[in-house]
Amino acid sequence: MADTLTNRTAKRGRPGYDLESLLRVAAATFNERGFDGTSMEDLSRVLGISKSAIYHHVAGKDELLRLAVNRGLDGLFAEVAALDAVEGRAVDKLEHLVRASVRVLIDELPFVTLLLRVRGNTEVERDALARRREFDQIVSDLVKQAAFDGDLRPDVDPHVSARLLFGMVNSIAEWYRPRGDAAAASEALAEAVAVVAFDGLRLQ
Amino acid sequence: MADTLTNRTAKRGRPGYDLESLLRVAAATFNERGFDGTSMEDLSRVLGISKSAIYHHVAGKDELLRLAVNRGLDGLFAEVAALDAVEGRAVDKLEHLVRASVRVLIDELPFVTLLLRVRGNTEVERDALARRREFDQIVSDLVKQAAFDGDLRPDVDPHVSARLLFGMVNSIAEWYRPRGDAAAASEALAEAVAVVAFDGLRLQ
Repeated sequence: MADTLTNRTAKRGRPGYDLESLLRVAAATFNERGFDGTSMEDLSRVLGISKSAIYHHVAGKDELLRLAVNRGLDGLFAEVAALDAVEGRAVDKLEHLVRASVRVLIDELPFVTLLLRVRGNTEVERDALARRREFDQIVSDLVKQAAFDGDLRPDVDPHVSARLLFGMVNSIAEWYRPRGDAAAASEALAEAVAVVAFDGLRLQ
Repeated sequence: MADTLTNRTAKRGRPGYDLESLLRVAAATFNERGFDGTSMEDLSRVLGISKSAIYHHVAGKDELLRLAVNRGLDGLFAEVAALDAVEGRAVDKLEHLVRASVRVLIDELPFVTLLLRVRGNTEVERDALARRREFDQIVSDLVKQAAFDGDLRPDVDPHVSARLLFGMVNSIAEWYRPRGDAAAASEALAEAVAVVAFDGLRLQ
């Protein structure tokens, strides 16, 4: 569905905003004011284009939300799909996924931030939560497999480990603000999260 | 100020709801519906008491919010104050504070959850954010001291470590739901966070 919409909109696109940049601004505005607190009127003011110019791209606010949260989810699931090509044991795939998720979070910051704030009040939100749960389940299964392989400490419950790992990753959305070299920042943060999560902060 | 209000309200208290249980229900309702999305009318319905019975305790919604977020903050700062009595080096005090913060989060779950969602839209929210920043600075200083002491890995920036540590702690509010023995759950989670943060998940 996302593809169809993108194609349709690409054809109808006009200079100034393509669907991608429209979605980024919409997501950032929803993050700042809350989805319920943002009207199409507000969006048209922030974007500096008419409401009908927005409706040219999307059917309404709900479609904006669906496309925006799916942008974040698609980034995460692309990394899950890429795991098949990662050599090594479950613990290696898990570390790969943790690092990749930090990069997706930073590359797609407004979309992932929006996704993390979804509470399930509408069908769009419930669909997003269902895909998040699916992702969490994949993480949880990797943690369980890595624990079974004897690569993770046996004294932390795998479900709790999975939650804490991604709690740490997701918390980055709360304070990270892009400035300077985003790719370098993203690498440094992926490394920091992997070090804390897998090796711990304490020098032995 | 919190003390004065508590005393005043204790005197005015009536059976059914004391200020404490009123605050807990109010905080849980704000968490569920959002502060802006909750009217005094809604609260009176959820509590099953009249609006005037609520005004008997507090001047209004803003005072409910202030008292509720301060409940969470007071719990955290009490643990900071208790650090003076903790033997050992900065890293030991840091681990103590991380574990204690998990316990406060679980004991005061609705209050800490509310605190973590504050965005700074009103004076009450800005005051809460200022106290949160003060707490974060204390954590950051402890991490820096522990790194300076040579007890933490030198390859993770202390500011980032501090953020990730408490990102992990705070993320518990997103998924933890009380059931069974809260004290045991709180101990197990404090232990899990300390293990992940300081020793890492990987078996060497």
